Amino acid sequence: MADPDTEADLIQSIFAPLSLGAPGSYGLHDDVAFLAPAHHGLIVTQDQIIEGTHFLPSDHIDMIAKRLVRRNLSDMIAKSGIPTAAFLSLAWPEARDRAGIKTFARGLGEDLDQLCGSCPLMGGDTSVTNGPLVASLTMLGRPTTGHGQPVLRSGARIGDVVAVTGVIGDAWLGLQVRLGKLSPDNLDACVAFAMAPQPPDLRLASLVGRYASASIDVSDGLILDASHIAKASGVSINLQLDLMPLSDEARNFTSFGTGHLSDVERATMLAAGGDDYQPLMTVSLSDFDAFQDAAEIIGVRVTQIGHCARGETVSLTYKGVPVAMPATLGWQI
Amino acid sequence: MADPDTEADLIQSIFAPLSLGAPGSYGLHDDVAFLAPAHHGLIVTQDQIIEGTHFLPSDHIDMIAKRLVRRNLSDMIAKSGIPTAAFLSLAWPEARDRAGIKTFARGLGEDLDQLCGSCPLMGGDTSVTNGPLVASLTMLGRPTTGHGQPVLRSGARIGDVVAVTGVIGDAWLGLQVRLGKLSPDNLDACVAFAMAPQPPDLRLASLVGRYASASIDVSDGLILDASHIAKASGVSINLQLDLMPLSDEARNFTSFGTGHLSDVERATMLAAGGDDYQPLMTVSLSDFDAFQDAAEIIGVRVTQIGHCARGETVSLTYKGVPVAMPATLGWQI
Repeated sequence: MADPDTEADLIQSIFAPLSLGAPGSYGLHDDVAFLAPAHHGLIVTQDQIIEGTHFLPSDHIDMIAKRLVRRNLSDMIAKSGIPTAAFLSLAWPEARDRAGIKTFARGLGEDLDQLCGSCPLMGGDTSVTNGPLVASLTMLGRPTTGHGQPVLRSGARIGDVVAVTGVIGDAWLGLQVRLGKLSPDNLDACVAFAMAPQPPDLRLASLVGRYASASIDVSDGLILDASHIAKASGVSINLQLDLMPLSDEARNFTSFGTGHLSDVERATMLAAGGDDYQPLMTVSLSDFDAFQDAAEIIGVRVTQIGHCARGETVSLTYKGVPVAMPATLGWQI
Repeated sequence: MADPDTEADLIQSIFAPLSLGAPGSYGLHDDVAFLAPAHHGLIVTQDQIIEGTHFLPSDHIDMIAKRLVRRNLSDMIAKSGIPTAAFLSLAWPEARDRAGIKTFARGLGEDLDQLCGSCPLMGGDTSVTNGPLVASLTMLGRPTTGHGQPVLRSGARIGDVVAVTGVIGDAWLGLQVRLGKLSPDNLDACVAFAMAPQPPDLRLASLVGRYASASIDVSDGLILDASHIAKASGVSINLQLDLMPLSDEARNFTSFGTGHLSDVERATMLAAGGDDYQPLMTVSLSDFDAFQDAAEIIGVRVTQIGHCARGETVSLTYKGVPVAMPATLGWQI
């Protein structure tokens, strides 16, 4: 901040408690953090959240912090990682109440503690800006795979099952409501998800590490993220849009919308929406039942939505009938 | 960016070459990076640079990127670290020419390569903003100390020499000129330093690791940063302002300024200025000559500017005469 003493006070009163006494955080009293040697390597994710780009200025500030944590956590889980350390860069608008930093830190701390398995905040940088709020989180974690490295995009094999956790499309539907492009009728839960997205239980990370041959967090959209796996792995992926797991609200949307769009078109829009905070994974056919059962035990629903075949592209079907790929991912209603 | 495909193209064409083929960067083709297990731990620094706060909108974009690298590198060297990986979060203004990203990346890459010992860019996040440019760099490095951990603020001992590398005050003088508060006469080199600050040679990191009992990058200002060491170490530090290493231009400023400020007042202003990109270190008296000689071999000047005694405060002298502490660090001319 403008006055270094103020920044030090701010860090000590607000952010230092989030270091959870972790060795190497030095209670945020020093200039750097230290990650002690470990027998495991480190998975690193880094995502930012920008006012006006990723959230609306009126969004609750604690929820903005949580979205930032969850964006990173969702990537971490998809790659099999258990978070071990986080670093925050915060550019705080001069025009915003300084007291909001405390609320931001509270949201950050709650999620790092409760969703990320008591992941300590090990350091970072706080400063002021005359522009919108920008925050970047760097998250480090340990992989849970047998080979000790993250699950990549590139491990899918021909014959693998393609599966996803949770539901798809709620975030996109909620965003359309918030942007005034869809009526809010019967979409309350989607709006709530868009504002407070829920990545799966952290315990899923170990199952991803054990079972997934390839994995990616669904952020760009199910179709595009499937194409990332297909391209990196050298397989083709057929997505069966009718198998896509939907919330009741999303199912209503695909079935009972106003007239000019078909069910298939609507399902395709959800598959292109993105920001679902769920891993899209490929799993060998022989492992899939065991994976699904293990996930069920921790309360995570895993749904098969396709399979890998020869080739390098993504194709779509709906109830067995081929579906044209959407022209662009920037769907508008 | 707005269109994910464009972001992927951007990353592959502009940032991927900066990964230098490092294993675990996956050529920036995957969603995370992986740092393999190592016998050493990792020092982590994170600093951001914000348009309007840390640089002027008219600054050259490649130099902005270099400042970002150098802010982190300066911290890393001060704590004895050799950079091994960097991660960039970039919020790029919609109003800026996209071509500028290429120039930004070129500056970033040049410094990571030439100043940071071919440190690879291992990942990050690029997005657009409707506000000013914000960039955050997370830098990881290996410590060079015998105990395998960074040099902290807290290791200074009574009797230790207090020393600094390079010169002090040029950044502050250059900034005053740029802000129109000082005449540019005879301050060209200071302006150049303020725009393109120079951290010491990376080889100094190993010498810091070998010789320094405590160390901090001079960013808040020599006096305040000395107080950080004093407080953390439980020692008092006497700074002899007349010993402070100055450039010829800074020396002229302290000696021949317009009338209403004394030499001592001017020296104090330089000592409170900050952004010097030099480590302030404490070194045991018996090691100091060897440290100075070793630094000289790599072309780094180390100057004794004080010593540690009993207490927990900082005191100032000028040619043996006590000097009052400045009331605030926000010096204005």
